[in-house]
Amino acid sequence: MRAREHGIKIGRFAPGPLNAITDVAGVKIGHVTLIEGERTRTGATAILPHSDNVFTNRPRAGLSVLNGFGKFAGATQVQELGELETPILLTNTLATGRAVEALVQHTLAHPENKLVTSINAVVGETNDGRLNDIRAARPTIEEMRLALSTASKGPVAEGAVGAGTGTISFGLKGGIGTASRLVEGHSLGVLVQSNFGGTLRVNGQELHETSKADADGSIVIVIATDAPLCARNLTRLATRSFAGLARIGSSLSNGSGDYALAFTSTSADMPNDQCSPLFEAVIEATEEAILNALLAARDMQGYDALRDRPNLIRSLKL
Amino acid sequence: MRAREHGIKIGRFAPGPLNAITDVAGVKIGHVTLIEGERTRTGATAILPHSDNVFTNRPRAGLSVLNGFGKFAGATQVQELGELETPILLTNTLATGRAVEALVQHTLAHPENKLVTSINAVVGETNDGRLNDIRAARPTIEEMRLALSTASKGPVAEGAVGAGTGTISFGLKGGIGTASRLVEGHSLGVLVQSNFGGTLRVNGQELHETSKADADGSIVIVIATDAPLCARNLTRLATRSFAGLARIGSSLSNGSGDYALAFTSTSADMPNDQCSPLFEAVIEATEEAILNALLAARDMQGYDALRDRPNLIRSLKL
Amino acid sequence: MRAREHGIKIGRFAPGPLNAITDVAGVKIGHVTLIEGERTRTGATAILPHSDNVFTNRPRAGLSVLNGFGKFAGATQVQELGELETPILLTNTLATGRAVEALVQHTLAHPENKLVTSINAVVGETNDGRLNDIRAARPTIEEMRLALSTASKGPVAEGAVGAGTGTISFGLKGGIGTASRLVEGHSLGVLVQSNFGGTLRVNGQELHETSKADADGSIVIVIATDAPLCARNLTRLATRSFAGLARIGSSLSNGSGDYALAFTSTSADMPNDQCSPLFEAVIEATEEAILNALLAARDMQGYDALRDRPNLIRSLKL
Amino acid sequence: MRAREHGIKIGRFAPGPLNAITDVAGVKIGHVTLIEGERTRTGATAILPHSDNVFTNRPRAGLSVLNGFGKFAGATQVQELGELETPILLTNTLATGRAVEALVQHTLAHPENKLVTSINAVVGETNDGRLNDIRAARPTIEEMRLALSTASKGPVAEGAVGAGTGTISFGLKGGIGTASRLVEGHSLGVLVQSNFGGTLRVNGQELHETSKADADGSIVIVIATDAPLCARNLTRLATRSFAGLARIGSSLSNGSGDYALAFTSTSADMPNDQCSPLFEAVIEATEEAILNALLAARDMQGYDALRDRPNLIRSLKL
Repeated sequence: MRAREHGIKIGRFAPGPLNAITDVAGVKIGHVTLIEGERTRTGATAILPHSDNVFTNRPRAGLSVLNGFGKFAGATQVQELGELETPILLTNTLATGRAVEALVQHTLAHPENKLVTSINAVVGETNDGRLNDIRAARPTIEEMRLALSTASKGPVAEGAVGAGTGTISFGLKGGIGTASRLVEGHSLGVLVQSNFGGTLRVNGQELHETSKADADGSIVIVIATDAPLCARNLTRLATRSFAGLARIGSSLSNGSGDYALAFTSTSADMPNDQCSPLFEAVIEATEEAILNALLAARDMQGYDALRDRPNLIRSLKL
Repeated sequence: MRAREHGIKIGRFAPGPLNAITDVAGVKIGHVTLIEGERTRTGATAILPHSDNVFTNRPRAGLSVLNGFGKFAGATQVQELGELETPILLTNTLATGRAVEALVQHTLAHPENKLVTSINAVVGETNDGRLNDIRAARPTIEEMRLALSTASKGPVAEGAVGAGTGTISFGLKGGIGTASRLVEGHSLGVLVQSNFGGTLRVNGQELHETSKADADGSIVIVIATDAPLCARNLTRLATRSFAGLARIGSSLSNGSGDYALAFTSTSADMPNDQCSPLFEAVIEATEEAILNALLAARDMQGYDALRDRPNLIRSLKL
Repeated sequence: MRAREHGIKIGRFAPGPLNAITDVAGVKIGHVTLIEGERTRTGATAILPHSDNVFTNRPRAGLSVLNGFGKFAGATQVQELGELETPILLTNTLATGRAVEALVQHTLAHPENKLVTSINAVVGETNDGRLNDIRAARPTIEEMRLALSTASKGPVAEGAVGAGTGTISFGLKGGIGTASRLVEGHSLGVLVQSNFGGTLRVNGQELHETSKADADGSIVIVIATDAPLCARNLTRLATRSFAGLARIGSSLSNGSGDYALAFTSTSADMPNDQCSPLFEAVIEATEEAILNALLAARDMQGYDALRDRPNLIRSLKL
Repeated sequence: MRAREHGIKIGRFAPGPLNAITDVAGVKIGHVTLIEGERTRTGATAILPHSDNVFTNRPRAGLSVLNGFGKFAGATQVQELGELETPILLTNTLATGRAVEALVQHTLAHPENKLVTSINAVVGETNDGRLNDIRAARPTIEEMRLALSTASKGPVAEGAVGAGTGTISFGLKGGIGTASRLVEGHSLGVLVQSNFGGTLRVNGQELHETSKADADGSIVIVIATDAPLCARNLTRLATRSFAGLARIGSSLSNGSGDYALAFTSTSADMPNDQCSPLFEAVIEATEEAILNALLAARDMQGYDALRDRPNLIRSLKL
């Protein structure tokens, strides 16, 4: 059950029909989930801003970094040019290079891109090494290309799927979560890869005294909207999403790399002083997306690569 | 009564003896409070890192900006050189230039500084124009120098004092607030000038559906510590304080300039991976400092300079 | 004589009719020059983006900081909102606060701004304390307001005028300089307040082994254009101007605060990949503007406030 | 012949014994050069800060980005934590992902790193697609690991080697170049992967009216030193290296991704105001390194992947 099915309503804006990032027209999500034997608990999640060739039809984008202790690929070009030129891939920390290669191969393979020689692959990651043998080079490039090629519209699978297969939040099983908001005629959707520590607050109430051991945690927050924001205001929107992370209780430790990427499907511009409702909505959608990730996950038995031993992580029970 | 006297205990670290920024050895606070006639509700607050000549004995410092919609003076030099060379003055938005001049005069006047020709005055501000005739050029330079010269150790006056005299938070009377934490042998203190909008949460619980009209709001968060942080880690510490702002319910609107400045009294270095407890402590101290500001303030009748009419702002009642 | 009258032609783009920042339609410059007695060698320079109310008719702007060791006021708001809301004032380091106050008074005084309660004054400065008694609180607020109110279109006085009255470059008398370029139908103009050290290169040729004593030097570069650049690309344009500073021989020392601010008179957008000619033009216009400042200046006798003694600075002779 | 053998002496500081980045004790360089058939002109260059395990013995580092239009991997973590945890690999744009994977494999393979689960691979790149079939997935991961495992001290091969095999500068054959300086008892070395456009200046003199077609150019500048700089001052040092790029004539076009990374072999700290000689030295070493790259290269026949046809690029003749 998702947060709203538990009667938990975060914030004041209404969610979209799916309460998912796919409420923003055109956005597609693809998961590859790898649960194999006693050690493989990992995967990849692809976010496609639209169904066209992203290299030639580039969404405006902005990136905000709260804690740069992460391997986010493509960061400087997004900040410099204010646009995406590939889909976004999320995966585990040690798969970042393979994810970049997967996006390069994906882009080169498009028939329109025969003379393309420069590609800025955008890859976010968090560390699933507490449940996954992260040193074992999974997902492969081919597995990540599958996440790209099978992405679809509609409801988004949450919890221990895709890039969230082996992640942990608050010492509980984390994963992928999503939520959306309708704001003055615009849609705004958030998808998170949730993997960090702190003290969980469910809509403000502390619930669990949880593990503080989060040296290699992180969160990647991806925000889609159809509101006409320039790259500067998309960056400002992304910055606000961290307030949702704060409200649910992240302790923002040294080891938690925290990144938020926002893109829009439109090219018009909105004045600065009309952005405030969107800024507020992204806070609550992010908080709800993280909670949805926790609620969708189940107990998981896996392998702790940092300690070279089995590990069992419980899921949140409300 | 302060938050803890109401039985509200935020976070897991213990506060220092005063639960104030002055728990960090050497720190002094000075307020000048101007409540005159029907229109003047403003002031200034000085934060002295120590009692010596700050120009020659420079504390390391870091500045983090969540929303740069503010007039914070001295920002680029703090970020470039990682140090303070003056005390910090907080005041109202339109007094920023006079505050810079006050710090320049204060520094030039020190007998050791007879050949000083360059001074980076550090000034934070928020907009008290909803209760104060902010266009009327108060506080004066002399009034602000008084805040510097009368600063003292010990308990810190909170609420509608100094730079918080005319500020508003969540549509309620805001002001100056402070709190501190003891973290593994180190002290960390926070002082806020609180003046922003959103939906107030008292330790996670939504309490008031409050005004969203906060076009010229802002918060300045000043953090002092005796922990041995380099300028880079002071900046990271300052960044975490915004999580306290998020938890108490700021909507982080377009118009709310949000700044956090951290300084340390020591010059040694601590490794990155030992910073996490301090990062967590600054979140809770910031949340509590904002709550203390609200709880200390009383109802205030003043003048709304934006609408050219009287204004009454109620205070928080728990 | 200016650089071109000496036969020195920098770069490949043609200058505008005045070879000055005022070639960009609407831009006005005002100087207040204070040469009094043996000790006062200072002033202020106002740059007005247009003749209307800047507070209500805001030019897009971007700011780039090479070395933040300076007191540039208004920095964070320009970077956050991508716009100016006041004219720009340049003056000496210790006059920054008074310059902010002058811009606040100037803005409040406009009949349309009767309910304005928040103003982001933009002030650049360099240190003229090697020729000027910088501690003596000149220019005054009133003197700086005069620079604003007397600004005009047309040719721009260069050398030891306005904010360049007491500045030094390469151990030679520096000052205010300007230049412009015509780029594919657009105008781009640069004005510099030049006050830094290094080894002077005249169009690439080293000319003088000059003073390295530049602890409190700096340069402020102001760029105006009518090209349709968004704030992000204005920031990128500003960043390129530092290449002109590099080419003329700045050593970019620790003590040289180097700032570049760019604004445009239009509101349309140009794609990233059409910006390169403008990027190239700003480099050469900046190099030429600095050279023009040096060439217009004359030998000056003044007062060295850092050493408390008279000082004579020679001018460049070609 | 290198620049100094041509009698060209850039700047005022003396070079080290090798006039190469390997003058900094401990630094090793490894090249893999791939010149095969009519289409393969690419490679990789490894920079090892020292011979130990970089993951456990981390050099302090700073990164400066002039133009973020590039795929530099590891950027945000270097900026956040101020340190390297892998060697640096330079290669072509579309090999970035494979280079990340190569560094991950290299690090995981070290016997001390058996429980390592998070690695921040640092990879710089420029686009050699004007001479190389960049779409053909060379160098491979194995080829890049060879650059790491064969790195050595001593003289550094320059020109069309390693990551410079297929690069172009000023429309002439570019490549890898290096230079060093001795500064007040410290060594400072620079290595560049040079691939950008503009108008070449040899020690200030314009020499060639060269190609402006540089849409996918870039430069990566790697700086090593044994001076005791903190991460903040390493970043400031890196920023200054762009002045060398400006002096040799880069037009800093939209498409030229320009990155500078600096690291130190020491852990002590130097005050801000003692950094100026190092700041000046890095400018001249960078200018000379780029010139050395041009002078070492020979005419090259290859394949233009952007135009799908053969291409001949001439080398600089003095």
